Order: sequence, then C-alpha cells, then structure tokens
Amino acid sequence: MRLVTYRASVEAAARLGAIVGDVVVDVEQIGIHAGPKLPSSMIAFIDLGPSALPVLKDILDDCNGRWPVGATLPLANVKLLAPIPRPRKNIFGIGLNYVEHVAESSRALDTASELPKQPIIFSKPPTSVIGPDEAIEHNKAITQQLDWEVELAVVIGTTARRVPQAKALDHVFGYSVMIDISARDNRRAGQWIYSKGQDTYAPFGPCIVTSDEIADPHVLDLWLTVNGIEKQRSNTRHMLFTVPLLIYDISAAITLEPGDIIATGTPDGVGAGRSPQEWLWPGDVVEAEVSGIGRLRHPVVAV
Amino acid sequence: MRLVTYRASVEAAARLGAIVGDVVVDVEQIGIHAGPKLPSSMIAFIDLGPSALPVLKDILDDCNGRWPVGATLPLANVKLLAPIPRPRKNIFGIGLNYVEHVAESSRALDTASELPKQPIIFSKPPTSVIGPDEAIEHNKAITQQLDWEVELAVVIGTTARRVPQAKALDHVFGYSVMIDISARDNRRAGQWIYSKGQDTYAPFGPCIVTSDEIADPHVLDLWLTVNGIEKQRSNTRHMLFTVPLLIYDISAAITLEPGDIIATGTPDGVGAGRSPQEWLWPGDVVEAEVSGIGRLRHPVVAV
Repeated sequence: MRLVTYRASVEAAARLGAIVGDVVVDVEQIGIHAGPKLPSSMIAFIDLGPSALPVLKDILDDCNGRWPVGATLPLANVKLLAPIPRPRKNIFGIGLNYVEHVAESSRALDTASELPKQPIIFSKPPTSVIGPDEAIEHNKAITQQLDWEVELAVVIGTTARRVPQAKALDHVFGYSVMIDISARDNRRAGQWIYSKGQDTYAPFGPCIVTSDEIADPHVLDLWLTVNGIEKQRSNTRHMLFTVPLLIYDISAAITLEPGDIIATGTPDGVGAGRSPQEWLWPGDVVEAEVSGIGRLRHPVVAV
Repeated sequence: MRLVTYRASVEAAARLGAIVGDVVVDVEQIGIHAGPKLPSSMIAFIDLGPSALPVLKDILDDCNGRWPVGATLPLANVKLLAPIPRPRKNIFGIGLNYVEHVAESSRALDTASELPKQPIIFSKPPTSVIGPDEAIEHNKAITQQLDWEVELAVVIGTTARRVPQAKALDHVFGYSVMIDISARDNRRAGQWIYSKGQDTYAPFGPCIVTSDEIADPHVLDLWLTVNGIEKQRSNTRHMLFTVPLLIYDISAAITLEPGDIIATGTPDGVGAGRSPQEWLWPGDVVEAEVSGIGRLRHPVVAV
C-alpha cells in the first residue's frame, strides 16, 4: 500500500491517507464508515503494529472503488507532506554506503579511500525534514557548498533490539525516498550533523510504500537530477551494507523503534565528487526518485 | 526552582514535581488546588513557555509550606526519572569543549591536538537516556572501552533560530547533569553516534534547575567518581565554547526547540586519557555532580 500524510487544504490538519489509483482515501474516515477505528496520523498507524495494515487492506478491498461520501479526495487536489512530518528522533543517516561514492568522496572530501568495514552512522534532526515540493534553504552566510544525495529511506515498524539479519526485514514498516542535503563546508572535525542536519536538509516522501509490496529493497533504481540534468543514477543492489545488515548493526547497540527512519546512503554523482565540483544555488530545482516508490521535487531558495 | 519527573511508586505514572525542601510538590495537583491548570509532564510545562514558571512559583509561595492534602510526597519516597524521560529528538552533544580534554583526547584517541575552531556537534538518541540510579549497560560483545564524561546539560525553553549570543540565554529553560557514556572502540570513521548513542549511554538528571536560579552557567564545579575515586574535577568556566555561543552556533543552522537538550562537553580525566587507560566494567559505580544542580549515581551492569 502507498500511504501518505496529506492536507485537504492549506489550512487543514495533516491526515493519514492511502493512495488508490488517483484518489487519496482518508484512513480514519474509511475506518469510521467500515467499523474498525483507524488513526488519523502515520505514526499512530505504525504504532498499531503489523496487524493494522491487513485491516486497512480489507476495508479498501471491500469498497472495491465505491468510496463512501467524504472518505476520498482526488490526489491532484491534496497537499502531500512528509509521510512522517515530525519524526520522534533524529533520522539515522548512513555514510559511504555505495562503492563508487566512497571513491568520489575520498577524492573530493576528507573521507578514507578504503571501503568502510562497518556502517558509518550520523543523524539528522526532525527539524531537517520537509515534505514534497517544499523549499531547500540556501543560506549563503553558512554555506557555498550545498550538495545533493538521493537515498532509499527505511521506516521501522516494530521495536528492534539485537535483531539478527535474517529477521531484520520483519521490523520494516515500509520504504520512502529521502534527499540527504549537505553543506560540505560545514563538516567540522568529521562530525556530520551540522553539515547534514540543518533546517530543510531532509526532503522526505512522497509516500511510504509498505514493506509487503517491496519484497527485496535491493532491486530499486534511484536517480537524481538538478534542473532536469541527471546527476545520480544507480540501483540499491550496489549498497555496501544492506538494509538487513544496517538494522542488525544499529539494533545491536541502539534500540530501533516504530517510526524510526534510516536513510541508507547515496550512490556516486554528488556535487562534491564532480570535476569541476558543482553545488546547489537558489533557483535550482532538485528532483529525485526511487523506482516503485515515488519522486520528490524541491526548489532551492535563498534565506 | 528544582523540577523533577517522578513516580510515586514503581507502577505509578511519571509526573512533574517541584522540589521544595524535602518534599516533592506535584505540579498538576497543586494547580488543581490553587486554580490554574498546570500540566503533569516536564515537556508540557516547558511547552507552556516562560509564563508558566512565575505562575507555579506564586502558587508555591502562597502555600508557604502548608501543602494541600495529596499534593506532596516526601522526596525520599519517590522514584526520580530523567527530567525529560523521552526527549523529542536526539540530544545535541558537544565534543572537545574543555582545553585539557582536547589534549588528552588527541593523545589517546583519533582527534586533533589543536583546539577546535567551531563547536563539534554529535547526537545521542532518546533511547540512550536513563534516569537517576538506573544501570549503564556494559555489553562485552560490543565494547571493552566503556568511558565516562560528566557534563552540564542545557535544556532549551523557547524556539531558537538564528539567535545572537547576547539573547541566547533567554532561550534556556534550565540546567541539568548528563553523563556522556562512550564505547571508545565503537567510533567508526569518526562519527560518534554509535559510540555515544547506545542504549543507557545518557544518564540524565536528577532535576532541572530553572535558569532564573543560575544566572551564569559558567561558574559551576563539576566532578565524577568511579567507585568513589575522583576521576574528573573542573569548572564550567573552562568551556571553550560557552552556552551562549553553542546556542548561537547551533541555532544559526538548526532550529532549537523547547525541550531540546545540549550536553556541553566534558573536562579532562576521562578513562581514555589516563595512563594506563581505564574503562568501566560491570560492578562499577559512577557518580557525577554539577554544583548547585545535583548528583547522579549509576551502577554499570553486564547485559
């Protein structure tokens, strides 16, 4: 299922929806019509645990396209927000998780040329999250090296503590797209939170595709363009540390919780790695897609 | 005022209290008696903004020690939790923020010997937080280099975005104590979240002293002992980057929000910097204090 967080109008509250064809079905409303109580937010739906999704699926199937009055809106008429507009902790970011990106990063930045032996983890605060079409802020007082990275985002569904790799995907609620924006000139003694955690530096969405529809997260194409020109194109099969390994590794020390987000790293083609280097500037438009999930489009604006 | 989060019994819900002498006054209950509606949690109290504290103060002053039935408990009879048991984002940690610690760290670890020119920021997830007397977990499968760091913790009271240093302290709700536990052998290509963000690695408390009672956060002694033997002793005047500078610096790029926590770095005397190096092991007891705020005591246990 494709789940979104949406507003029916600019002033309306954020609500949980399921995309069916070209309509958004409001999850709480369809529950009221069908009987079962369903929540109005993505995080509350995730908190219900794995039993919630089959209930919602059955309700949608039973409707068979005949939607109760007031339970749907045309997808074209709603504003989509980040699927989890306000994560309950920082996003877990993974650095240097595609082979070619390790090489370009070691040439251009201050990272090692050897492949990392263990996942390199950093974080992005909840305040960095923006939804589809929202502006990436370019603050010229802070950075002249604003860079892009398209990534597959993993959303955790159930608490994961010391989870073996073979069981790791059982803890995934679904998948989404994240652009990991960085101010490369803000790296600060190697710690990346300042360069990657600034306001608006985590475009996220447009939906979460639940894990039942993505049996293997390592067969997905992903690409990114700036002003329509392709900068990154790869496939998630090139990840160094797979999604099960990341969940195993993090959960060995840090308990993962429902709603947690892991941005799984980016392939090569970032601005820092190009010759000459390229950066984002106000007026640019960044688009990024992971196949089967969706596309993000974000203008860069001066602030 | 000294504010705490407490349980009246092991099974009771966490509640907001104010310490007056040797009693804990329940903030919601005293509000019910006096008239104004006051919240039952620290984070809800912080969210009320700066006007809440004077209201609570007036109520407590009016009582003049004659507490309504059911509004107080002896401090000795309650269980204190972390003042914010579940922060709404990762804690902001500051690395290498005391001169002597920069020197010992560069000798013992992989950090530079020059003083940092800008604050070095990392993060610790909400799952790392534990309250007074709770156990620090030693997982020998993960680490043989578990280390201690006593720190002054700053709790943000109001949203801070691009705040000048001169206004920065206006955004502080209060101060507390945090022990920044690290697994030094888990540093991973320089990113510190894995080494510092593990479950139980952020002992926090025992209270928040509101900022009206600490006009200058840079005159506070702080110390730490392991099994009663002093390992760290310094004063917050030795911070490289002061609290106003940290708030200015972070808020220039990352909006700080009510309830955010900044752990401001540790003085010298950590285990990694000693000769020979010393580490925490199951059975050890760590105590740490910041003068005028309070003392934490935590056993280390094998898991």
